[in-house]
Amino acid sequence: MDQSLTVGETVTLPSSVAKHWLQVMRGEAGDQAELVDDTEHLFLGQLTTTQTVTIVQPLSADVELPVNITILSGLPKQDKAEWIVQKATEMGAYRIAFFAADWSIAKWQPNKQAKKIERLQKIARGAAEQSHRLHVPEIAYFATLQQALTQLTSDQLVVAYEEAAKQGEAAQLIQVLKRSTPHQAISAVFGPEGGISPAELALLKDHGATVAGLGPRILRTETAPLYLLAAASTVWELQ
Amino acid sequence: MDQSLTVGETVTLPSSVAKHWLQVMRGEAGDQAELVDDTEHLFLGQLTTTQTVTIVQPLSADVELPVNITILSGLPKQDKAEWIVQKATEMGAYRIAFFAADWSIAKWQPNKQAKKIERLQKIARGAAEQSHRLHVPEIAYFATLQQALTQLTSDQLVVAYEEAAKQGEAAQLIQVLKRSTPHQAISAVFGPEGGISPAELALLKDHGATVAGLGPRILRTETAPLYLLAAASTVWELQ
Repeated sequence: MDQSLTVGETVTLPSSVAKHWLQVMRGEAGDQAELVDDTEHLFLGQLTTTQTVTIVQPLSADVELPVNITILSGLPKQDKAEWIVQKATEMGAYRIAFFAADWSIAKWQPNKQAKKIERLQKIARGAAEQSHRLHVPEIAYFATLQQALTQLTSDQLVVAYEEAAKQGEAAQLIQVLKRSTPHQAISAVFGPEGGISPAELALLKDHGATVAGLGPRILRTETAPLYLLAAASTVWELQ
Repeated sequence: MDQSLTVGETVTLPSSVAKHWLQVMRGEAGDQAELVDDTEHLFLGQLTTTQTVTIVQPLSADVELPVNITILSGLPKQDKAEWIVQKATEMGAYRIAFFAADWSIAKWQPNKQAKKIERLQKIARGAAEQSHRLHVPEIAYFATLQQALTQLTSDQLVVAYEEAAKQGEAAQLIQVLKRSTPHQAISAVFGPEGGISPAELALLKDHGATVAGLGPRILRTETAPLYLLAAASTVWELQ
């Protein structure tokens, strides 16, 4: 619903919602369904006429990670970007951004970027619905890591670094997760298949990035973000 | 190396290893490289001649999860089985098995099973090498969950159940992970796209399975095993 809802009010259904409910779901007056408003709040609504719905009660659906995690991934090869978007959305990413890394083999031509982002945004929307999320991750693309770091502000910046994992670094990620507080923002940077370049690593350190290992096994560029998101869920959401 | 190695001994290289080291890597006498023996121990070896290598010293590479996790997944659609094998291997699974679940849409014809398992085993081997693992997960297939549970013994049995996640169950997985001790075995069961059937859930409970949620978001059949493996790594391997 493209508005903020309050209990008791009767609102006219957007045509797309009405069509889905009435034609696809065969809805009738008196039927109830869950509605998400534009502030990402979930409500139970009851169909009054074929055009309007009365908001019955708020529903709490605490399905979002308490801290907003932006996945900032060096542009990977082929369809891996689509794959990362679908899986990272399922795993709870708040935003998913790609940057043309020094060692990225793939490149997005300027005239193709809008279309590629649009396609990835559609994949994120589908994955968010499928995993019952209220928030659809925003998709973004940056021509360089420098641009990404300038435009994506966060409370904590962390970079997954393969060499750290090889050297047995195993404390940093947990510390980053444990010292973050609800509604803060974490940006997590991942290299492309070729890895993070020395220049990029230096730039990240200049921006105060924490260099973290993701366990002792070397993870592929499309797997590492899922490890980090699952680790965050484990620390923040499991008891 | 198809044998158990000891420091100081000089052994003849298997032709495949010799070919890779000498022709592909352009190895010369005096060069050193890591060798894994058939007991999954890692050693540093020095090339003496083009045929033999002297074992210089043992190398510790603690890259395996301390507890052996078997992923037991309801047979998924299309190429998702290959995908699960590659990613679960990267994430540290000890064994990856599939079973024809009540609600599996895909089926493996008996005459195709050996070939399919062979292909998945090859994918597991490649993923294990790529992630620097010493252990290559064994791939298995069972015609029913009953057969799988009879043949796969474990210290703890856990089933990822979507309804548990929807109901906010968030304590069981952590408890399973925290009460397991090194070298124990955990079998983790996941439904196919259609989910676990009531009969299968009842069977699992009869076998003492712990019903666990994997966080508040609904994960696809191919994503859930990765969440569990990353959660295990987070609890056991990160400090």
